[in-house]
Amino acid sequence: MKDMGATGQFAGAVDGAGLKTAIAPDVARIDQAMQADLAALKGDTAALLNEVLHYGLFNGGKRIRPLLTVLCFRLCGGGEGKSQVDIYRLAMAFEYLHCATLFHDDVIDQALTRRGRPAVNVAYGETAAILAGDFLHARSMLLVGRGGGIQALEIFCKATTAMVDGEFLQLHNASNYNLAEADYFTVIMGKTARLIGAACEIGALVAGADAAAQQALRNYGLHLGCAFQIIDDLLDYLGDEASTGKSVGNDFQEGKMTLPLIVAMTRAEDQDRERLLFMLASAEERKGGFAEACALIARYDGFVLARQKAAEMIASALAQLHSFDQAAVEQEMAVLEMLAHYVLSRNK
Amino acid sequence: MKDMGATGQFAGAVDGAGLKTAIAPDVARIDQAMQADLAALKGDTAALLNEVLHYGLFNGGKRIRPLLTVLCFRLCGGGEGKSQVDIYRLAMAFEYLHCATLFHDDVIDQALTRRGRPAVNVAYGETAAILAGDFLHARSMLLVGRGGGIQALEIFCKATTAMVDGEFLQLHNASNYNLAEADYFTVIMGKTARLIGAACEIGALVAGADAAAQQALRNYGLHLGCAFQIIDDLLDYLGDEASTGKSVGNDFQEGKMTLPLIVAMTRAEDQDRERLLFMLASAEERKGGFAEACALIARYDGFVLARQKAAEMIASALAQLHSFDQAAVEQEMAVLEMLAHYVLSRNK
Repeated sequence: MKDMGATGQFAGAVDGAGLKTAIAPDVARIDQAMQADLAALKGDTAALLNEVLHYGLFNGGKRIRPLLTVLCFRLCGGGEGKSQVDIYRLAMAFEYLHCATLFHDDVIDQALTRRGRPAVNVAYGETAAILAGDFLHARSMLLVGRGGGIQALEIFCKATTAMVDGEFLQLHNASNYNLAEADYFTVIMGKTARLIGAACEIGALVAGADAAAQQALRNYGLHLGCAFQIIDDLLDYLGDEASTGKSVGNDFQEGKMTLPLIVAMTRAEDQDRERLLFMLASAEERKGGFAEACALIARYDGFVLARQKAAEMIASALAQLHSFDQAAVEQEMAVLEMLAHYVLSRNK
Repeated sequence: MKDMGATGQFAGAVDGAGLKTAIAPDVARIDQAMQADLAALKGDTAALLNEVLHYGLFNGGKRIRPLLTVLCFRLCGGGEGKSQVDIYRLAMAFEYLHCATLFHDDVIDQALTRRGRPAVNVAYGETAAILAGDFLHARSMLLVGRGGGIQALEIFCKATTAMVDGEFLQLHNASNYNLAEADYFTVIMGKTARLIGAACEIGALVAGADAAAQQALRNYGLHLGCAFQIIDDLLDYLGDEASTGKSVGNDFQEGKMTLPLIVAMTRAEDQDRERLLFMLASAEERKGGFAEACALIARYDGFVLARQKAAEMIASALAQLHSFDQAAVEQEMAVLEMLAHYVLSRNK
């Protein structure tokens, strides 16, 4: 991590800019690995497929998942001098899988845009989006198997199937307006957190870390992932459309039960709960009633308590890092800590 | 293969009933392995996901791909006494992957039925079909990695990405009405043959076969797969709707260039080629002109020559089996030969 400057520069910083600077060299190498992979595939793949992959992969993504693999690898003593593993090549599998799920999600949601550009399904059609997702899916499994062996493949595939399972649970929970907090956490654990946990765990595994270290970093990732999703769901209510680039109120309009609403439903007095239920039961009420719903959720501290839950998750994530507190890896530690703080403070 | 009766019973037989009897015990064990896997997953997966998987996997499929893995495994000396591999558990990965592609294909084609039942996308919706496909995709990779190691995973993933690539080539070739035969073969090799080749190759690999035997069985599968697709495309023109359960003329109506039409376009005199081009260029003409197109294709022996090409492929497939001609594996040999003959003679 020689290009990253002194640790002091970003220790304690939680602003996006400081984090961005700190991770820039690794992000660049992850992007290079992906570019090199697509270039190597060029001879064997249809020109259109290669174009779709380029379009979908290089869309301004922050590369958080592969970055976590790289950081956890180094945190556990993996490094270019010590290991045969090309960690960037392995790590990019997480970006491939992540993008594959985005391609498919955007088909499912009939999304028009992704990061301010036409989504793959819009730019190239649904067929291309489904197939390119399948391609990245298979390619990611191959990269993980090659770079990390069967044990890494096992972790990776299980995180992938858990992701699908989380989506199915979410389908199942739809229009269950009395959803328990525990059900919400089961969904976000599968849908979001498991892959982030796997990114961390596999970084540790291929560095040769012991089981305790693998577990600690997996837990770091799981908690980080849960916090990330809670904040994401919170921004769907409270986000500033100008910074997020996304409109607010989508989840409520769709009748999707996320943490602020679940908390409010649980805590509300009968009359207010009835009112929320009444609104949720009708698509028209949901469409017109966002402001009123926000007021009701706020009345029962739904937003505050959801953010508090995310903060607890981040505290748990950070606690996992204590045992790695060594001078040799203080830069990696600093970035993992910054990432955790950033997830909590992000506004987009 | 003790349950299969004497070899003499089916040597030379090419009728579907004889083949069905011969493969029934292995097919039953493949189905059992899939049932057991879904049952084991039950605790960890959403009830709806499990239901969708059941519905999509147990739909009367012939299990040809996993069967090939099992047969090639035994042909190369793999057997329950000699090997730790649970070959059925590995083999079913090919059915998982195959079904995953069917789920996604049916979403892409907005298919209404599959094997006479509502397709998964109709019975459970597009979201469920896309996600369940992704689940099977990941699960298949895991089963191959576990059962066959990294080398098997490599073969499997490359066949999967080749399949996507074949679909993209097909997209690219759409409305190229002067498609060369070579381009057609590139598409069907990727789209259909590579996975069948991989099923055979991996069976050989995990049995511990040498490189030559792996290659021979891979080639058997590739040729079998190409012949299968040629006949499939032929049945789209000449099939009996009552036996196939599929309407004819779909490919022509969509302007899809398959072998009979390509052959005819290549051999037709100017006037007839112009006429075909004229029809192909207009959706309306394609819709109304199927009978005329059939007559033109027949005039230039498009159907006869396509079938001849499939027969050549089957001959090449069979030639690969010569080196395995040993008494100990004559039942496996017989089934592989019957399968090859059956592909050529099938009418549904």
